[in-house]
Amino acid sequence: MTSTTAGLTGRLAAFAVAPDLVFGDAALRIARLSMLDWCACTLAGVEEPVSRITRALVADEGGTVEATVVGGGRAPARAAALANGATSHALDYDDTHFDYVGHPSVAVFPAALAMAERTGASGQALLRAFLVGVESACRIGHILGTAHYQFGFHQTSTSGSFGAAAAAARLLGLSAEQTAHALGIAATRASGLKSQFGTMGKPFHAGMAAANGIEAARLAGLGFVSRPDGIDCVQGFIDTHQGEARDVEASLAGLGRSWRFEAVQHKHHACCHGTHAGLEALHGLRREGLRPEEVAAVTLRVNPRWLRVCNIPSPTTGLEAKFSYRLTTAMALNGLETGALETFSDAACADAALIALRDRVLVEADAAIADTAAEVIVTRTSGGTLRREHDLDRPMPAAEQAEKIEGKVIALLGAARGQRLIETIAAIETLTARDLAGVLAG
Amino acid sequence: MTSTTAGLTGRLAAFAVAPDLVFGDAALRIARLSMLDWCACTLAGVEEPVSRITRALVADEGGTVEATVVGGGRAPARAAALANGATSHALDYDDTHFDYVGHPSVAVFPAALAMAERTGASGQALLRAFLVGVESACRIGHILGTAHYQFGFHQTSTSGSFGAAAAAARLLGLSAEQTAHALGIAATRASGLKSQFGTMGKPFHAGMAAANGIEAARLAGLGFVSRPDGIDCVQGFIDTHQGEARDVEASLAGLGRSWRFEAVQHKHHACCHGTHAGLEALHGLRREGLRPEEVAAVTLRVNPRWLRVCNIPSPTTGLEAKFSYRLTTAMALNGLETGALETFSDAACADAALIALRDRVLVEADAAIADTAAEVIVTRTSGGTLRREHDLDRPMPAAEQAEKIEGKVIALLGAARGQRLIETIAAIETLTARDLAGVLAG
Repeated sequence: MTSTTAGLTGRLAAFAVAPDLVFGDAALRIARLSMLDWCACTLAGVEEPVSRITRALVADEGGTVEATVVGGGRAPARAAALANGATSHALDYDDTHFDYVGHPSVAVFPAALAMAERTGASGQALLRAFLVGVESACRIGHILGTAHYQFGFHQTSTSGSFGAAAAAARLLGLSAEQTAHALGIAATRASGLKSQFGTMGKPFHAGMAAANGIEAARLAGLGFVSRPDGIDCVQGFIDTHQGEARDVEASLAGLGRSWRFEAVQHKHHACCHGTHAGLEALHGLRREGLRPEEVAAVTLRVNPRWLRVCNIPSPTTGLEAKFSYRLTTAMALNGLETGALETFSDAACADAALIALRDRVLVEADAAIADTAAEVIVTRTSGGTLRREHDLDRPMPAAEQAEKIEGKVIALLGAARGQRLIETIAAIETLTARDLAGVLAG
Repeated sequence: MTSTTAGLTGRLAAFAVAPDLVFGDAALRIARLSMLDWCACTLAGVEEPVSRITRALVADEGGTVEATVVGGGRAPARAAALANGATSHALDYDDTHFDYVGHPSVAVFPAALAMAERTGASGQALLRAFLVGVESACRIGHILGTAHYQFGFHQTSTSGSFGAAAAAARLLGLSAEQTAHALGIAATRASGLKSQFGTMGKPFHAGMAAANGIEAARLAGLGFVSRPDGIDCVQGFIDTHQGEARDVEASLAGLGRSWRFEAVQHKHHACCHGTHAGLEALHGLRREGLRPEEVAAVTLRVNPRWLRVCNIPSPTTGLEAKFSYRLTTAMALNGLETGALETFSDAACADAALIALRDRVLVEADAAIADTAAEVIVTRTSGGTLRREHDLDRPMPAAEQAEKIEGKVIALLGAARGQRLIETIAAIETLTARDLAGVLAG
């Protein structure tokens, strides 16, 4: 058995529970935005089938009421994390991180929230444990890399289990050694296959990760002895799950001082991520005064990899609409709120005005365009063209980032409920985790 | 999405819940022996640290009392399966199967028993669901093969999850289609790494598998849509977990008519199965009069696959002792009862006489030796050598098999309690699952 602090697992454990961590303002600001985004996605997802099914399982089991199940009820922390994880990823509208090739908050926040409710933690402690958890997930995610994903594993669930365990361990007040054992338990418990995409398995993965994290931290707190080097030992998690493990030192560089999580991306349109760069460009033109009747033709230029993902030319259902460049372009030019779920309806697919506009859109592939970018060229009825590009990787000023997420919250929850949530998260450092849970339950 | 019945996952699902299966007498007899063996190992394991810790976790969560937690308490079926699985494998004294390269009963029986208690099933139904579950685990285990194990996965936990899901699905009365979804959920939930051997992670794997099986069956019963071809689809479980998938048709041959589970092996030494063939040979030499002071050196020759499993050269704890060829060899030559739990103690690891003998043992790998066999070569202080081999695959007559297991039950539980258990299992087809649970609780 190797030392508990020298290797990767031990270093992440020491980071996760370090009492003297300095949390940068930018990282805390982004973590608050992701908390807000998570809460809105979860509240909006409670009626999805996977959410109802997972909640029914948890309700049937019952148990010590420690934590809020969003959508109704209270349950043991592990069970609440399972249900809330699945619910928060049900709409696939939550945040993503390119280091980690997955969705960090839906795996980590449900574990942090449930454990914070169980332990009666402050909002400050919840926010910091969440940040430590997603940061851990991003660091491990970077080490596992795209090789892990391409081989067939879903990082939301695999790296997410480690992030959830780290957050739960911090809130439970585990020692670094106990936390290494918790990560070791997570190493043998983590799973999740990409072949579940398109089924309820995908959102359930987020719940699995969150529940694994609580279970691992609780067991370690009770004295469970696992491999305290379980992530990086011979035949540990990385070895057995096609981790790239490129340069571990580079992946861990600045751990505790710089925060890779700051690069998290939030979704602002309730449709396929491949349409988002184009929608940003189109909404920009609309804000500058372009009206649909002025549009003779539109060319939307994207990276070719997206053509197999979201280029349904003439969608007929709300679900298909989310994967249609032509219809979402027409929606944006018509001023529809592409951040709202109800915009993507069967009725929209049959709307004559939208169809007329949709049929003037041409989609063009260009390998020179980054897969985070798009270019829009509008030919005006009056002659002349407008040209606009957008790259999702372009850093966004803090004020614009907050404004956009707050707009999404209102679009998802309505003004009254949305505003209450925005204010709660803004004040989280003066509140308790149970205060936040009360807002989510109420 | 592929058809739910054509492929491997669908065929196993159809087998698991087939209403008209013909259960052979030999298979039912062996399943009863394994039930008896499981019950004895579990009752004997209740005070082990991993059992206490897992039971504490389950007790803390509480919930609907559906099933017996052996060692104390009642819990939801999933939670009882988690605790009972870990407890039953805590001593590593339970049955094994070489097709499956793992421990079938500790993964499957806790799921079958808890689900049978929940649903009020008969002892007949429990016995048959258990047999269907272990048979499913052995078939998948054969397909995953040793490649899966050598790469670092622990079949007790991985194949065990599928077997547990199959047993739970049968007792829950799921349709074949629902069962395919349950197996699909298990495909994305199953995990377990061999690098946990020597820690509490190993016995916990059995609990994970049993709990996964219940969770998967329950979710599928609630309408969860997963990949109904999740085991064998592209980037499904076999693809992503180094399955050999040699000849699937051969692995499934006779499914529902012949029972691979009949080849299950029961342990008669309280240590890693990899040491047993050698121990049989060593005890044979001892019975013929060999004394430790006559031993100048011992060469223990085994299949190379075992070197990563049970070759801790200088163990310091009772648990490590169970995975040490050198120390267990010294124990057998010294006449210690390797069938008794208390033989494997920290004190034994520090015993000067044992250490002196241990340090005269050389372990040698030879790929020509079957992994069920071992050869012992003793060089005598007086000169000359003794040579003896043993193969666990040598078939044992039914009466001898029953007699050996009943002897083990009495050795573990004492005469009164042991006899009561033997009689309960003998009468299981006229009793209910709850009757058996009552004996385990009492």
